[in-house]
Amino acid sequence: MTTTNHAVVLAARPNGAPVESDFRVEQRPIPPLAPGQILCRNLFISLDAGFRNWMDEDSGDNVLPAMPLGEPVMGLTLSQVMESQHPDYQPGEYLMARFAWEEHTVTDAGDFISRLPSKPRDPLSHYLGVLGDTGLSAYFGLTDHGRVQTGETVLVSAAAGAVGSIAGQIARIHGARAVGIASGAEKCAQLIDVLGYDAAVDRTQADIDAAIERACPNGVDVYFDNVGGPLLEHVLDQINEDARILLCGAVASYSATEPLPGPRNLFQLTTKHASMHGFMTHLQLPRYDEARDVLGGWIDAGRITVPEHRLEGIDNVGRAFCDLFRGANFGKSVVAL
Amino acid sequence: MTTTNHAVVLAARPNGAPVESDFRVEQRPIPPLAPGQILCRNLFISLDAGFRNWMDEDSGDNVLPAMPLGEPVMGLTLSQVMESQHPDYQPGEYLMARFAWEEHTVTDAGDFISRLPSKPRDPLSHYLGVLGDTGLSAYFGLTDHGRVQTGETVLVSAAAGAVGSIAGQIARIHGARAVGIASGAEKCAQLIDVLGYDAAVDRTQADIDAAIERACPNGVDVYFDNVGGPLLEHVLDQINEDARILLCGAVASYSATEPLPGPRNLFQLTTKHASMHGFMTHLQLPRYDEARDVLGGWIDAGRITVPEHRLEGIDNVGRAFCDLFRGANFGKSVVAL
Repeated sequence: MTTTNHAVVLAARPNGAPVESDFRVEQRPIPPLAPGQILCRNLFISLDAGFRNWMDEDSGDNVLPAMPLGEPVMGLTLSQVMESQHPDYQPGEYLMARFAWEEHTVTDAGDFISRLPSKPRDPLSHYLGVLGDTGLSAYFGLTDHGRVQTGETVLVSAAAGAVGSIAGQIARIHGARAVGIASGAEKCAQLIDVLGYDAAVDRTQADIDAAIERACPNGVDVYFDNVGGPLLEHVLDQINEDARILLCGAVASYSATEPLPGPRNLFQLTTKHASMHGFMTHLQLPRYDEARDVLGGWIDAGRITVPEHRLEGIDNVGRAFCDLFRGANFGKSVVAL
Repeated sequence: MTTTNHAVVLAARPNGAPVESDFRVEQRPIPPLAPGQILCRNLFISLDAGFRNWMDEDSGDNVLPAMPLGEPVMGLTLSQVMESQHPDYQPGEYLMARFAWEEHTVTDAGDFISRLPSKPRDPLSHYLGVLGDTGLSAYFGLTDHGRVQTGETVLVSAAAGAVGSIAGQIARIHGARAVGIASGAEKCAQLIDVLGYDAAVDRTQADIDAAIERACPNGVDVYFDNVGGPLLEHVLDQINEDARILLCGAVASYSATEPLPGPRNLFQLTTKHASMHGFMTHLQLPRYDEARDVLGGWIDAGRITVPEHRLEGIDNVGRAFCDLFRGANFGKSVVAL
């Protein structure tokens, strides 16, 4: 049995965007298994910007508790059971879990664990991305709240990210014109060339209103917002009647040291009889298998391309997390251990 | 036939909240009827804060054009056909119309006119209030988007206004706890004593967060917002999971000279998987009769009290409009001509 374990601990609370020195790799013993516990090997660590929130002393929400300093950082993993003293789990089984950034985890199995299908698809890392919370956020967001119709314009922020890279492709499958927002000319070109977006808006250019208008000449029917913050005000000015705004992520605010200003033109929702929907994808867990079948079918048919930003080894987990905040990833970020 | 007409013209564009000198009564001739036109006597003028928007040179929306200076102010009226050269309209018929603030109107009949039911309820002025756009805003907002459930808490801003005075009562009929926000102790007492609100929040007190928390100990499930502006940020901090926010009016911003700051905590919608809905009630015109039957039944059964702020005569129309912005009305504001 394995006896050594490496974990990434929270060395310092990030001040604004996280930097690599906020994290430190430590060797930690693996405790012996108690009755009811399982020992897992973590095969992949998922990097998700939202976890930045709980690195603050006071996250301002009650979704998860604040992470303690000097302790392993909490995250999402794809893991395999190695030893089990719990009747419901057998060695060899694959799990998705809210485990720490570490090579091995010993835990009382709880509701922060879900199982992979008995015949998982290949590669397994997709269960942290297109077939996991991020891909399913794109799917449920557009299906449940977006109700995308043929010919509509779907605008996606952080369009090269884990959620956005899938959202644009799903929008196109529904017959919509997909427009992606990303930072820099190179990423914008990739949105079109790799992900099939119909048009791209470079977030770094001076006149963002004009850029959105050029890319969305018929206005915006659905805005799939992964960044939050000031961009929303610009988009609200260009929504169509009955528009739907999906608030999925807020990467712009996770590392803000002050609350970002809110949109001053929310009344656009009234005059355009539009709506805004927040959603937490993990609440749809009972529907994951159904959604995975649909997404898997699209992947098999070559209708969805799945970009992955993959690094290797526990030493690179902190860096991969920081990459999210400097926009260095294209697609879902994972670290293979 | 009547030959003189008095109209209220826009004497000056209001700077912030409107004042009485922004309006002036003028005598104007009644033009002769051309083929296809009707002459109406305006029995009641409805005062609606939203029309403040179109008194600016640039309203910032495209719902209606800006009102010209020196011309009669545009509004909503309850009118009776006196003469008709239009095949679809007969003398004696009652109409609701987007007519000017004047005693008589000559017009080509268009889609800015709707008919009262053939056997209208008494008093007729209710068709501008509880059975008109404001009461139906309360009804459709809570029914279509609010989906109020027994035991939920429904918080209503501008709770003594035309919409709010009805919204709270409908919320209670659905079995919800209704909490109203209004300015001043006297109005707050009336919310409870006259309109049957379960609790009231005085908008003028220093710690509005604590006041909302005291009045809504179980959090806010539905927020029916008639004022817009900074209050929304305070309410967002106290919404429950799956909360619904209904953006009906924005009286706080209609007369603001600068855009008001937006809520900095919109991400509460995501963590609480809540939603926000803008709506324009006049788009539901085909359902008005159905909704009036329901509301009329509640009035007949004594389940809804209908307060009205009624003034008399064309000379008082400007004053009645200004009353809306100083919160002088309790219930729907109308002027009987």
